[in-house]
Amino acid sequence: MTNSSIQLPTLHTILSPSLLDFYDLRGSVVVVIDVLRATSTIATALYHGAKEIIPVDGVSECIRLGKEIEAITAGERDGQIAEGLQYGNTPIQYTREFIEGKTLVLTTTNGTRLLHRALKAQPHQVVTGAFCNLSKVSDYLANQPKNIILACAAWRDKVNLEDTLFAGAVVSRIKENFDVHCDASSMAEALYQLGKEDLFQFMKDQNASHYHRLTRFGFEEDIRYCLSEDKAPVLPIYKDGSLMVKKSMAAFE
Amino acid sequence: MTNSSIQLPTLHTILSPSLLDFYDLRGSVVVVIDVLRATSTIATALYHGAKEIIPVDGVSECIRLGKEIEAITAGERDGQIAEGLQYGNTPIQYTREFIEGKTLVLTTTNGTRLLHRALKAQPHQVVTGAFCNLSKVSDYLANQPKNIILACAAWRDKVNLEDTLFAGAVVSRIKENFDVHCDASSMAEALYQLGKEDLFQFMKDQNASHYHRLTRFGFEEDIRYCLSEDKAPVLPIYKDGSLMVKKSMAAFE
Repeated sequence: MTNSSIQLPTLHTILSPSLLDFYDLRGSVVVVIDVLRATSTIATALYHGAKEIIPVDGVSECIRLGKEIEAITAGERDGQIAEGLQYGNTPIQYTREFIEGKTLVLTTTNGTRLLHRALKAQPHQVVTGAFCNLSKVSDYLANQPKNIILACAAWRDKVNLEDTLFAGAVVSRIKENFDVHCDASSMAEALYQLGKEDLFQFMKDQNASHYHRLTRFGFEEDIRYCLSEDKAPVLPIYKDGSLMVKKSMAAFE
Repeated sequence: MTNSSIQLPTLHTILSPSLLDFYDLRGSVVVVIDVLRATSTIATALYHGAKEIIPVDGVSECIRLGKEIEAITAGERDGQIAEGLQYGNTPIQYTREFIEGKTLVLTTTNGTRLLHRALKAQPHQVVTGAFCNLSKVSDYLANQPKNIILACAAWRDKVNLEDTLFAGAVVSRIKENFDVHCDASSMAEALYQLGKEDLFQFMKDQNASHYHRLTRFGFEEDIRYCLSEDKAPVLPIYKDGSLMVKKSMAAFE
């Protein structure tokens, strides 16, 4: 049987959580994308040996659970450490010395909410993606026999550039293996091709709103890290309430 | 007073009707965009002398009203003339010989619905835009002291390329006059700059879903027309239930 006679799985990009309902997520692999900075933090903490990351929606739930299981609590609201939590959402803070062997309870403005929203739509699996684990995510997806949904966390439901660029990066790497009839995917890829030589400069040139929001708080180093590829090559997979590194990937490493 | 000390009005692009609620439309000028093909048909019919166009949501309402006021009824569902209506949504069909002096009651899959949804959000004004009236719309907006919302009709709430490209064309022409902190606007403009030399070829290269949908029905000539600039230079403005040409624009002509 040749490739052309095989029905390929589909690939779609969802530019805002509010558009989730217009896509069929059942049985698919959903990639939750929140480049600045939830999914960059998740990959980095797991790469540096965090035992697991428990994403929760609210700050009070984060505090409660953190106490109950004696875990590190972290999260931000509007780019600042949320009151009552111990740490923020700065991936470069999650060094091996700090996080190895520990459990992190995390809540963020957009990323963790999207994750829980996606889970309700009965996907086969939810993983998280960011530039720091781009190759790991792309390689995993490329070999899936499942439909793929690239779900951007956006900013308060408004489309943002950095999540779109990451979706585009994934599309550019795996599209040959999928049936792509999705304008958002094509648009994301075209934008990634346009900006890929220097994503930081591209974000600046495009006057990206999140670039301004975070540089105002002094997070330029964070942004540079979050736009760098493959600094934290792990595949975070959601299972039974927490994100952990997919162990069976070891064969590929 | 220099320009820099003046608070400029804002400019936002909304890539899908489902994202409307996240923006404040009150007091703004909203441009409803449905390039393939509702707003191309609206501009063309008005340019060729249609007295007015009454946009309605449903096919049955279209039939009822058409009978009541003895108007032409037109509209499509999924790219085909809807059952019970007289004409479709093919702009090139609306020649001067056919439409001059007549009233058109129009319903389409996405465009007319977006228009009614936008009206509920208390905008200052709603106009319609497509490539065939790009300059007219842009020139009008550039001189507005109001916030601008470029609202894409999309396809069943899924982001589409052609409406995004049109929004990008408008952004590229008027951005100097506005405060643009909107990633969707920047993304739309970058895509327009990428494709503007040959929008038809760009749609084809990007594998745009609507390009496929319409060419399957034999509408290639329609698409070429809808992607051509300034073939129907009028400004359709919504007032009291119908779209008419803004007469006071005559001074600019």
